[in-house]
Amino acid sequence: MPQASLLKLAVCQYAPRLGDPEGNAARGCRWIARAADAGARLIVLPELASSGYAFATQGEAELAAEGLDGPALGRWGESCRELGVFVVAGFCEQGAAARFNSAALMGPEGLIGVYRKAHLFYDEQSYFQAGDSGFPVFDLPFGKVGMLVCYDLWFPEAARVLALAGADVICVPTNWVANFRHRVADERGWIMGNYASVAVATQNQVFVAAADRIGVEREIEFIGSSCIVGPEGWVLAGPASRSDEALLLADLDLSQAAARKHRTPRNHALGDRRPELYGELSVARPPTSE
Amino acid sequence: MPQASLLKLAVCQYAPRLGDPEGNAARGCRWIARAADAGARLIVLPELASSGYAFATQGEAELAAEGLDGPALGRWGESCRELGVFVVAGFCEQGAAARFNSAALMGPEGLIGVYRKAHLFYDEQSYFQAGDSGFPVFDLPFGKVGMLVCYDLWFPEAARVLALAGADVICVPTNWVANFRHRVADERGWIMGNYASVAVATQNQVFVAAADRIGVEREIEFIGSSCIVGPEGWVLAGPASRSDEALLLADLDLSQAAARKHRTPRNHALGDRRPELYGELSVARPPTSE
Repeated sequence: MPQASLLKLAVCQYAPRLGDPEGNAARGCRWIARAADAGARLIVLPELASSGYAFATQGEAELAAEGLDGPALGRWGESCRELGVFVVAGFCEQGAAARFNSAALMGPEGLIGVYRKAHLFYDEQSYFQAGDSGFPVFDLPFGKVGMLVCYDLWFPEAARVLALAGADVICVPTNWVANFRHRVADERGWIMGNYASVAVATQNQVFVAAADRIGVEREIEFIGSSCIVGPEGWVLAGPASRSDEALLLADLDLSQAAARKHRTPRNHALGDRRPELYGELSVARPPTSE
Repeated sequence: MPQASLLKLAVCQYAPRLGDPEGNAARGCRWIARAADAGARLIVLPELASSGYAFATQGEAELAAEGLDGPALGRWGESCRELGVFVVAGFCEQGAAARFNSAALMGPEGLIGVYRKAHLFYDEQSYFQAGDSGFPVFDLPFGKVGMLVCYDLWFPEAARVLALAGADVICVPTNWVANFRHRVADERGWIMGNYASVAVATQNQVFVAAADRIGVEREIEFIGSSCIVGPEGWVLAGPASRSDEALLLADLDLSQAAARKHRTPRNHALGDRRPELYGELSVARPPTSE
């Protein structure tokens, strides 16, 4: 099997700013340029990088939202064109009839696709509609790319659907928060988002690239710790700091995501599934609740 | 909500011996007694604790197999009766028409139920039929117990089905092997089985108790590292040594598995699922392969 060329992937960890859409568009451009300077061809920005996170009113969310021809996507797409790179970035999407917490995939030729966050966390439910895009996979020159956003990682069904559709790498714009967790990190300094990233990688033998943000908005504390994980679950870069900006880089041979699907000569990460035993997964509500 | 009393759970890490069924039955009894002495009420033994793992011929597997009235289950059930404890133990099951790599749940009143490993690893496929039991959950005085065996942990569908059926704790007899892994452990000393255990815990907000074995059989190296994980994914005990015997103990409030399902006042680990988007999970074969 011919060795695929390596893909340099970058994960950008920084703090978008609530109420500063122009600044956020410019901030994204600077990080894309910085990552491209470092040789990256695929670059991941955080969740809601266009808008910030902690909306307090519908008006704020409305003002921060943009369509697919909006200013942040426009400027980031321009950067992709100029620099010849691909970018996955979280943005506040104004759809035809609703707002979504979305991730856009852009390349040198412009916008390639959009994923709308399927699993909304806490007050996101006040400002966004749960995603209706399903879990699309995009076939790029260097491999197949899927996207998830933050809380999606705790729903292994989502990553599994991406893997079944052939994803080699799952890019995860995220805004992991300290709130609601009784404990933020363990003695090693890992947050649960790091474990959730490893989980999805090892269960599916895919690469995972999680770009988190830092900073505080209206008492919501974001906890950085961005990471890049390989298809056998070992961390390739990060976790980054919980409070500082960071640019994580890793050289990925995306063909390994497919090659390593054979866990042994007699095992395949997806072929070994027993869907005939998984019937309960189509149940909409938990049968038990306290 | 009344605080449930704590359950002391024990995970027993030791080396069953191939070709020594009587010794294995006695070994299991000794570990059950040791765990009960330490105050444990629920005790987990490794995978194939009755038989050892690395069969080389059908005859060996046949000799090692036993029915539900077999000698190992009989003796361990006796221990449960005498000591008033519950035991989950891996055993080589002779069914009516096939052999299974199974886990038995026994209590003071005798055998409670059996789970047959659904996802077979490597040469297990030569000696066992893939499990047909589905993923049963058993309602015990202290909480709801599900079982998985080893490689099952890499199929998040399995743990999810258990969680949807109300499991508070998933007991995992396992025989994690070093072979086939390009890397056995990371700089922290964790093996991928530890991450797989954390994955299942955090994705489902359940307790996970993984009892691994140690030792070498026919060039297959087992790597211990047993662990007990809490419903938010943090490790409560272990990982144990990769080469030495170990008794791990933890006091679990199993009611937390249900209580913590509410990740926030507006989120529920199972209720937030989007089954209408998970259609691909019923696909039997991966649509792409290299």
